Amino acid sequence: MAVTPADAGVASLGEFVFECGQSIPELTVAYETYGEFDGDNVVLVCHALTGSQNVARTPERDADANQAGQARAWWDDIVGPGKAIDTTEHYVVCANVPGSCYGTSGPASERPAGLDRADEPDHDRWGTAFPPVQVEDWARAQRRLLDHLGVGRLRAVVGGSVGGMNVLEWAKRYPDDVDLIVPVAAAARLDAQCLALDAIARRAIRADPNWRGGEYYGEDRPNPDTGLAMARQIGHVMYLSKASMERKFGRRSAGRDSLSRDEGDLGLDADAAAAFFPYREVESYLDYQAEGFSERFDANSYLYLTRAMDEYDLAAGYGSDADALAAFEGEALVMSFTADWHFTVEQAASVAAAFRDRDIPVAHHVIDSDHGHDAFLVEPEHVGPPLRDFLADGVAGRAVEDEGADGSPREDTAEPTHAPVHSSLFNR
Amino acid sequence: MAVTPADAGVASLGEFVFECGQSIPELTVAYETYGEFDGDNVVLVCHALTGSQNVARTPERDADANQAGQARAWWDDIVGPGKAIDTTEHYVVCANVPGSCYGTSGPASERPAGLDRADEPDHDRWGTAFPPVQVEDWARAQRRLLDHLGVGRLRAVVGGSVGGMNVLEWAKRYPDDVDLIVPVAAAARLDAQCLALDAIARRAIRADPNWRGGEYYGEDRPNPDTGLAMARQIGHVMYLSKASMERKFGRRSAGRDSLSRDEGDLGLDADAAAAFFPYREVESYLDYQAEGFSERFDANSYLYLTRAMDEYDLAAGYGSDADALAAFEGEALVMSFTADWHFTVEQAASVAAAFRDRDIPVAHHVIDSDHGHDAFLVEPEHVGPPLRDFLADGVAGRAVEDEGADGSPREDTAEPTHAPVHSSLFNR
Repeated sequence: MAVTPADAGVASLGEFVFECGQSIPELTVAYETYGEFDGDNVVLVCHALTGSQNVARTPERDADANQAGQARAWWDDIVGPGKAIDTTEHYVVCANVPGSCYGTSGPASERPAGLDRADEPDHDRWGTAFPPVQVEDWARAQRRLLDHLGVGRLRAVVGGSVGGMNVLEWAKRYPDDVDLIVPVAAAARLDAQCLALDAIARRAIRADPNWRGGEYYGEDRPNPDTGLAMARQIGHVMYLSKASMERKFGRRSAGRDSLSRDEGDLGLDADAAAAFFPYREVESYLDYQAEGFSERFDANSYLYLTRAMDEYDLAAGYGSDADALAAFEGEALVMSFTADWHFTVEQAASVAAAFRDRDIPVAHHVIDSDHGHDAFLVEPEHVGPPLRDFLADGVAGRAVEDEGADGSPREDTAEPTHAPVHSSLFNR
Repeated sequence: MAVTPADAGVASLGEFVFECGQSIPELTVAYETYGEFDGDNVVLVCHALTGSQNVARTPERDADANQAGQARAWWDDIVGPGKAIDTTEHYVVCANVPGSCYGTSGPASERPAGLDRADEPDHDRWGTAFPPVQVEDWARAQRRLLDHLGVGRLRAVVGGSVGGMNVLEWAKRYPDDVDLIVPVAAAARLDAQCLALDAIARRAIRADPNWRGGEYYGEDRPNPDTGLAMARQIGHVMYLSKASMERKFGRRSAGRDSLSRDEGDLGLDADAAAAFFPYREVESYLDYQAEGFSERFDANSYLYLTRAMDEYDLAAGYGSDADALAAFEGEALVMSFTADWHFTVEQAASVAAAFRDRDIPVAHHVIDSDHGHDAFLVEPEHVGPPLRDFLADGVAGRAVEDEGADGSPREDTAEPTHAPVHSSLFNR
């Protein structure tokens, strides 16, 4: 099909059999593109857990593209004309992943006629009858979309957080299809601490009486916003570092009691004892963010996507991460952030070591930051230069640093002590 | 009054005016004692957030003292005959704090006749009409209890976690009453990250439909166990280090699906999509622990005690921590653990610096451990020796180490790099 610059649409891709074996008759994928396709300039961007296909602002789409809320233009500092992923040079594609809620098929999508449940024949949404989704399905859906768009080989696949897992899956599943991969603030798999917090977050949603086993769609059924807000708050703490929270909020009071707020938007009962204590800025911030989030995101999608993230294991089906990546013939830039305790520098180093083990050109670029996991979004000034130069010259790129095979990065620390070596495995 | 060895009881201490200004007509305090009082051998032990007065096992109390569940004999490795706090030498007193639920007055206590609420005249428990409680009230209640027991001056006050805040409050409020203080795994105040997680945990309780604004007492009203379990799970993750969770659980499956469990004890609706994914050991462990916890603890008490912890600020009423401690004329042993991210080594160092600033003899004993905050309970082999020697000889005690004023401890790290200097500010 003909591709126009700065396109946005929803592709109908036919039946889709998920990795779990279940299928849906029609997979729809919402996507956006930026720049002009010239045959070998495609950069696929993979969004994070609650992101959308709307990577960057475009003048022609600003007017009506408001469905994504905070997920709008989520990497606008990185993607655009003259930016690190330069849309005057690259043709950028981003697709909303299956299981999400920004236009691609997921639990909130309409269920095709004839697939109603026996016990609820008039119900028109999938709910939790939607097949379980895995990161592998995201990569497969992206491949299907790109085929649909007439794109074969990719210059690069780039993404952060669980989007970085999505990137790694590309190198594993389609090793011949892509030259360069850039997993940012990612890991080959989650550790036990993150698995635990994600499980608690899902419990918060499922414990909300409005969740109703996932069957909350319909006019007379309120969304499980209270549970979703709590889940998001747990996630939010995971995205920030201890030091950045302390610096940003400290113990300051928000200047009003918690009673007035809790009686409001989040709909919780108040208690007299609570009114004695200050409503702190950190709580106010998390409440404000979570309220906005529960307006823009679907609770079932949150369950689905966190389960996909938890389940992902790069080594699955192979003996090791290195074996899983062995067929990849391109180059990799692994980026990590010193105060990220969701996806640690140590985990990124382990991914880099897996590439190195198979003699795949790789640079592990560690960024000194106390912003935590959030750094991949809020520090474009540090993410941009190595990303730009890697897209141009691979690991030999000028701003690409590599901590090297001997690096023993500090995990989970607020005080950066790691001094990245400004060199690459190859040349400068 | 006459004190017998290994005593346990509930003292009725008359009207108690809380720091907030509200009062109750009769404060009851549940306490236990161990050893024999000889006039100057009293060690007050302060329990942590969900602990009880039952510090150690005693033969005569084992038969019936089962009310405390997991809070039973919580420091039995440290307190007892021949142990670090040697009950053949010391007279140990531990009291359940106001706001808790192990026999001392709190939200679950019976409300005296005549104080029923106008809108619910037959209601016989305080619920959230119980006055807001602060750490300061804990110290004041302990002082009242000790007066009641005929104890004037104390040899030592020892406690871990928020119990360590309770210890610091003794040095601040009753500087002439105690020779030695030992705050273990404590801080002068919580940081923003912990404040945030505590606030989310309270939200989990308050969002439970069974909570009913705190009015869930009574035969036909179920407890808000689901919310309390979630709150506990958040706390539990805070008590463990990232490295210890990974080592203990990794990503292993518990060998059954989550569906079967979730339909069970925690009473959450199941969803089909969840059944595809493994129920992991880390989740199984947290669920098991949280279920036990919600059987032994009162949800309103959890709200009250976490608020007390969050609100505590050693410097309150003074210009600084050092000013707050300035009148203390004893010696202090501050103990911390390298992988504790709830109360960090850095926070402990700050407390030690405050003592040092006022020329108060202090040792900051840092224990290399990857157990996280939990270490103060699970590593008695490291806590015991310095504690024992400090009780005998103060900071000059043989096993007491001090990282010194120049220490720049690493915060929140799994790989111990800190090498404590085996020396004290004074002599060996």
